[in-house]
Amino acid sequence: MTDLLIKNVRILDDDPADILIQAGTISKIAAQLDAPGVPVEDGTGLIALPGLVDAHTHLDKSLLGWPWYKNDVGGANLMAMIENEREMKRRLGLDPHVQSMRHALKTVAYGATLIRSHVDIDTQGGLRALEGVMQTAEALADVVEIETVAFPQSGLTIREGTAELMDQALAMGADLVGGLDPCGVDRDPKGHLDIIFGLAEKHGKGIDIHLHEFGELGLFSMDMILERAQALDMKGMLTISHAFCLGMPDFPRVEAMLERLASLDVSIMTTAPASAPAPMVKRLDAHGIRIGAGNDGIQDTWGPYGNGDMLERAKFVGLRNNLRMDTEVKRALDICAGGGAEAMGKQRRELATGAPGDLVLVEGEAVVQAVVTHAPRKLVVKGGRVTARDGQTVVQAP
Amino acid sequence: MTDLLIKNVRILDDDPADILIQAGTISKIAAQLDAPGVPVEDGTGLIALPGLVDAHTHLDKSLLGWPWYKNDVGGANLMAMIENEREMKRRLGLDPHVQSMRHALKTVAYGATLIRSHVDIDTQGGLRALEGVMQTAEALADVVEIETVAFPQSGLTIREGTAELMDQALAMGADLVGGLDPCGVDRDPKGHLDIIFGLAEKHGKGIDIHLHEFGELGLFSMDMILERAQALDMKGMLTISHAFCLGMPDFPRVEAMLERLASLDVSIMTTAPASAPAPMVKRLDAHGIRIGAGNDGIQDTWGPYGNGDMLERAKFVGLRNNLRMDTEVKRALDICAGGGAEAMGKQRRELATGAPGDLVLVEGEAVVQAVVTHAPRKLVVKGGRVTARDGQTVVQAP
Repeated sequence: MTDLLIKNVRILDDDPADILIQAGTISKIAAQLDAPGVPVEDGTGLIALPGLVDAHTHLDKSLLGWPWYKNDVGGANLMAMIENEREMKRRLGLDPHVQSMRHALKTVAYGATLIRSHVDIDTQGGLRALEGVMQTAEALADVVEIETVAFPQSGLTIREGTAELMDQALAMGADLVGGLDPCGVDRDPKGHLDIIFGLAEKHGKGIDIHLHEFGELGLFSMDMILERAQALDMKGMLTISHAFCLGMPDFPRVEAMLERLASLDVSIMTTAPASAPAPMVKRLDAHGIRIGAGNDGIQDTWGPYGNGDMLERAKFVGLRNNLRMDTEVKRALDICAGGGAEAMGKQRRELATGAPGDLVLVEGEAVVQAVVTHAPRKLVVKGGRVTARDGQTVVQAP
Repeated sequence: MTDLLIKNVRILDDDPADILIQAGTISKIAAQLDAPGVPVEDGTGLIALPGLVDAHTHLDKSLLGWPWYKNDVGGANLMAMIENEREMKRRLGLDPHVQSMRHALKTVAYGATLIRSHVDIDTQGGLRALEGVMQTAEALADVVEIETVAFPQSGLTIREGTAELMDQALAMGADLVGGLDPCGVDRDPKGHLDIIFGLAEKHGKGIDIHLHEFGELGLFSMDMILERAQALDMKGMLTISHAFCLGMPDFPRVEAMLERLASLDVSIMTTAPASAPAPMVKRLDAHGIRIGAGNDGIQDTWGPYGNGDMLERAKFVGLRNNLRMDTEVKRALDICAGGGAEAMGKQRRELATGAPGDLVLVEGEAVVQAVVTHAPRKLVVKGGRVTARDGQTVVQAP
């Protein structure tokens, strides 16, 4: 936590101002600030945005730094993709610490100051991925806050020993309990959900569950999830990632589910996928549901897409939700910044006194332009510390 | 049409080769070529892709070069967006020639050598937009081939005098007859379609009609379109742009329509929209239907998105269609290059002898990587002539 004075920036689309960060927190914002002894950065009239937040990614999966991976598995068969990934990780001997350093720092170079990463826990890799990502979180503590989710990517009840590894992962320090398509993968929704909610209760931790299941099946799983969250009084402690079923066309059924999600203060994390039904921003906003966004895995065995840029993700949120007006595109940005932090249960990232001293300076004439062009990041600051400059992180990736 | 020898490029993912272009056409491809007296470009081992093709855009609409436009109209009301655009064009006094030069050259800088542009024909602007875009097409004849579609953006039967202007536009040299949502905009599908097919017959030109209508309504309009194309024996002369209704979930109804489209050799142009149902690449491919892609309007009063980059559009095609395998992503690229040219009824752009001497050199390790990162364009060549280098066009935009 350090002090920093940033001169002459346009906060969102406002007139130029100076921002003073003291002890890691924004302490003053005004037209002309002086702070003797405090290091100064000249913002040169750039646009200042809050620190960006990747609320759903997989730091242990990327192949960054490896020769380009030729994908011949495709997207039609979820279990085949899961099997292929485990096999490729073994064959390549991927080091989760090295890969997560590369991935996290790429995300930082694009302006992120906060990341939630799901981390594979399975009987082949054991706790190795979590150890690597936690090592990265520690190494980068001053650069980006990394939260970990113990994620049973290969299934829980279908692979004996996984529940015990999840238990160990949480004891080791994973921040949240993960889960995955209780019908689609384990084919045992009761078994899967009883285990993950049991772990959450035992360790006093929240849950962030992947739910790709479509339509009625997804609503059924979501119903079983909410039933348990209610019974365990987990209001505000539950996140559902993807939640494709909320994009189904049956208006009253989705409406009833949104009311239940709001009443339990469940967060929804989305990648704003172009090829799947998805929770719609305006609709969730109408219910006051917290929304975060994430880049998900980038350049891994699952697919070639992604680069760690949460400003580009804001563009995807805008495109997916047909957001065209300035106010709408700014909401898409918020979901990838302050709103995403709130969806993680963290303090809102915003350019206001009392908020964390996290910000990004970008080129451009207007905020919406910066979003849709994902304009170059000139400076990234976390807690008053410069973490990246001109797209290069201060800490080098291995 | 000129001669050019390009040394040391990787054609798609193949081993390094040289490409000789003579009189604007690729005449030889081999490991080591010499051509005394022919200018040489050193490809330095870059990846060579065919020239990119934007098969659906609106060169007369972009606000490029103007102060960033604040959008407060939104995407909910089509007629409000149409009215707003006409009013803004008038208020700003947009010069269609200047705007289309800016837009076309930006697209060229990203590697395009062929563009199909719809151009607004209405009773307010008259033929002014078409005159401007045709002036651009002439000025850039050596740089990019521009095809124009006379497009009744504000409606045809609802604005008296538009049909006469369309007739004049075609006499002036517009290459194709355009149309727009015959139910949704004119609210008179018979009236609208009889006019545009009448114009096509009179001028002996093809049709490219915008069809945003969803589901059953879109299928109804498409049925009326195909009925006329069949009666007038317009096999291979009809394009349907957007065709959102082909993304509806009713499998057998869509299947029957795809069979009819294939039998009339209708081309489909798509933007691969994230927020609307869309024709699915694999499904159309199974029927052998020609597919092109386009960036549509960029940075205009309709919305802030878009930049003219057809390699990024290939990424959007991949994301929208959940294309993950190398072979699939390469098909997405093809739709934005050679396949798009075929969908326009033009000779296929490809890196093969006898094909037009159009190509793009990009950085990167593999073609799929170049697509998903929309890697920097180092050199763009049309008909053996260098049109852009390092992202800068040889001809300057006004």
